[in-house]
Amino acid sequence: MISKFMAPEIIFGDHSIQQTGESFLRLGAQRVLVVSDPGVKEAGWTAEAVESIQTSGLDYHLFSNISTNPDTAQVAEGAAAYHKARCDAVLGIGGGSALDVAKAVAVIVSNGGKIENYEGVDHIHSPLPPVIMVPTTAGSGSEVSQFSIIVDPARKKKMTIVSKSLVPDIAIVDPFVLMTKDHLLTAATGLDAITHGIEAYVSAAATPLTDVQAVNAMKLAAEFLRPSVASHTNVEAKRAMAMASMQAGLAFSNAILGAVHAMSHAIGGRYALPHGEINSILLPHVMEFNLIASPSRFAAIGDIFGASAGGEEMVRARHGIQAVRALADDIGAPKTLHSVGLRDPDFESMARIALEDACMITNPRDVALKDIEMLFKKAYE
Amino acid sequence: MISKFMAPEIIFGDHSIQQTGESFLRLGAQRVLVVSDPGVKEAGWTAEAVESIQTSGLDYHLFSNISTNPDTAQVAEGAAAYHKARCDAVLGIGGGSALDVAKAVAVIVSNGGKIENYEGVDHIHSPLPPVIMVPTTAGSGSEVSQFSIIVDPARKKKMTIVSKSLVPDIAIVDPFVLMTKDHLLTAATGLDAITHGIEAYVSAAATPLTDVQAVNAMKLAAEFLRPSVASHTNVEAKRAMAMASMQAGLAFSNAILGAVHAMSHAIGGRYALPHGEINSILLPHVMEFNLIASPSRFAAIGDIFGASAGGEEMVRARHGIQAVRALADDIGAPKTLHSVGLRDPDFESMARIALEDACMITNPRDVALKDIEMLFKKAYE
Repeated sequence: MISKFMAPEIIFGDHSIQQTGESFLRLGAQRVLVVSDPGVKEAGWTAEAVESIQTSGLDYHLFSNISTNPDTAQVAEGAAAYHKARCDAVLGIGGGSALDVAKAVAVIVSNGGKIENYEGVDHIHSPLPPVIMVPTTAGSGSEVSQFSIIVDPARKKKMTIVSKSLVPDIAIVDPFVLMTKDHLLTAATGLDAITHGIEAYVSAAATPLTDVQAVNAMKLAAEFLRPSVASHTNVEAKRAMAMASMQAGLAFSNAILGAVHAMSHAIGGRYALPHGEINSILLPHVMEFNLIASPSRFAAIGDIFGASAGGEEMVRARHGIQAVRALADDIGAPKTLHSVGLRDPDFESMARIALEDACMITNPRDVALKDIEMLFKKAYE
Repeated sequence: MISKFMAPEIIFGDHSIQQTGESFLRLGAQRVLVVSDPGVKEAGWTAEAVESIQTSGLDYHLFSNISTNPDTAQVAEGAAAYHKARCDAVLGIGGGSALDVAKAVAVIVSNGGKIENYEGVDHIHSPLPPVIMVPTTAGSGSEVSQFSIIVDPARKKKMTIVSKSLVPDIAIVDPFVLMTKDHLLTAATGLDAITHGIEAYVSAAATPLTDVQAVNAMKLAAEFLRPSVASHTNVEAKRAMAMASMQAGLAFSNAILGAVHAMSHAIGGRYALPHGEINSILLPHVMEFNLIASPSRFAAIGDIFGASAGGEEMVRARHGIQAVRALADDIGAPKTLHSVGLRDPDFESMARIALEDACMITNPRDVALKDIEMLFKKAYE
């Protein structure tokens, strides 16, 4: 088997956000479209990145009309802003939503058309303008991944766009930026990172290169997500979770994901629910379903999450699932789809959408429509 | 502390050499300068890469005047061949020597002047043409690194050239290519990879991102270097050593190295001795010297190389040094500089050169001139 691995240049560390301007200078940029979201702007991080851009003698234009589960209209609006302001580079600074919109805008301004044209794998052909990402949550991994997830409201669908071109030029990961997140966002995004690590590790496309990243991400999150949720100023925990999220991103960007994400995208296309929470609700159910596909890998996950004192493979594997559940409980994650506000769901039609999602291809266990419906129902209440 | 990490796109796997042409096509190349060495040419791998280039409809020109410890004249000759044949891309296929010349040629053809002008850190300013590397030994890690090492005969010196620009666009790592190496080359290059892993792991510039690569490289080499030396057809061992070498390359490219390499470069500038063998002779002496700089890291190395059944930190660390010695012994590595042909060495002047080498900066223990002389003498006989 031939495995491929791609990563952006990575700048990781305390206050690394201040290297944003210098990094754009190095990429030859002159005028940067800054794609951010209102929360990050309010926390002051957007201003800090902008200051760095200006200090380097570069110009910028701010676009911050970003919502959770961003859609095609926001991408079109961002692309229009890019052209109108005559930008030649893109900064994504924010959570996964802002980063994914920034990527999608970079696609449109260099490849033309609508973002819907690029849904699926490898449909981007022209090089993008210089793209730098500064994540402000430890969860999405979008700063290093070849993914962008955009909602198409017309089809009530989260589109998965996958292309090597979507790997940013530079990922600037600054743990200090995580200190302004509240405990709810820290928990939801941290569980998203754990889901990335676990799905990438058991993915049908996992390789030795993705395994080292996934295993380290899981180890860090197993140790540091609880303290990170507990204290917004615990620097050690923020550093660990920033690294965990990025390493999980490197893992899933190259090993792709599985049923949790395929199902989560199906929900997210219809309901404006937080991606991380949905994932963490679905995760243990999908783990139980997938267990027989790779007992040894699930046993290793059990060892990492610390529930096991040895025993045979299937015992360690089952303990692992309980340990992930316990971690989610400890940080106050919701347990059912009903509890986060899902009402009268049409699971059959969502299952059809999930079955077609690009992430389902690498799920380690064969999945039929009725399996997905069953998993949705288990997760519902 | 801010850490940076760079890696090329990686294509890893059996028969991946056949993706050479397609990869150049993707980078927009039309006529490739193929930089190779006589041994690799004879083994047939150069022809296999060339066939892939031609199958993709691209043209090529072959330059194969490469020796061990290649020098400035070979780089100039390669650059002249590139221009004369109107090439627009560079393939390095071979051991570390061929890859390092290929990189140096790419520097000259795009930046002008002589390769001597680019000695040291970050002196390359213009972008290089598309560069792809296919390593045929599991040792140098040059396929993923930001290093090129070229001998300057005028100064009897191995120049260390370090720049992000030297990270190739694509590294194609094909374990099958390793099957034509004899056991001596397998041992020497494998010990080079181990030295990279160890020096990067204890480097003053090590980061969590380089640690995961270094640790995995050491684990793989600890388990698979012996069987790889024992059998040229053991596919599992070749796969493991190809991965180990590449991961050690990712580690040292970003964490840099230490005294072993600084001293080895000083020897290699004057004597045409194999780099891997010199490294493996110096390694245990330097490990003993460096031990007190990082007992916990050397203890972890002890655990990886399997010599330890627990015990306190310094005991595990010392066992680790013995275990590395035992591994080198088992695969028939030479034990003294005298035994590999060094005669009447002027250790004082070589120590001066080693002290100035770029690799010495990240050695974990402070080093004085007399320390290096003492280490050279210990390694001599």
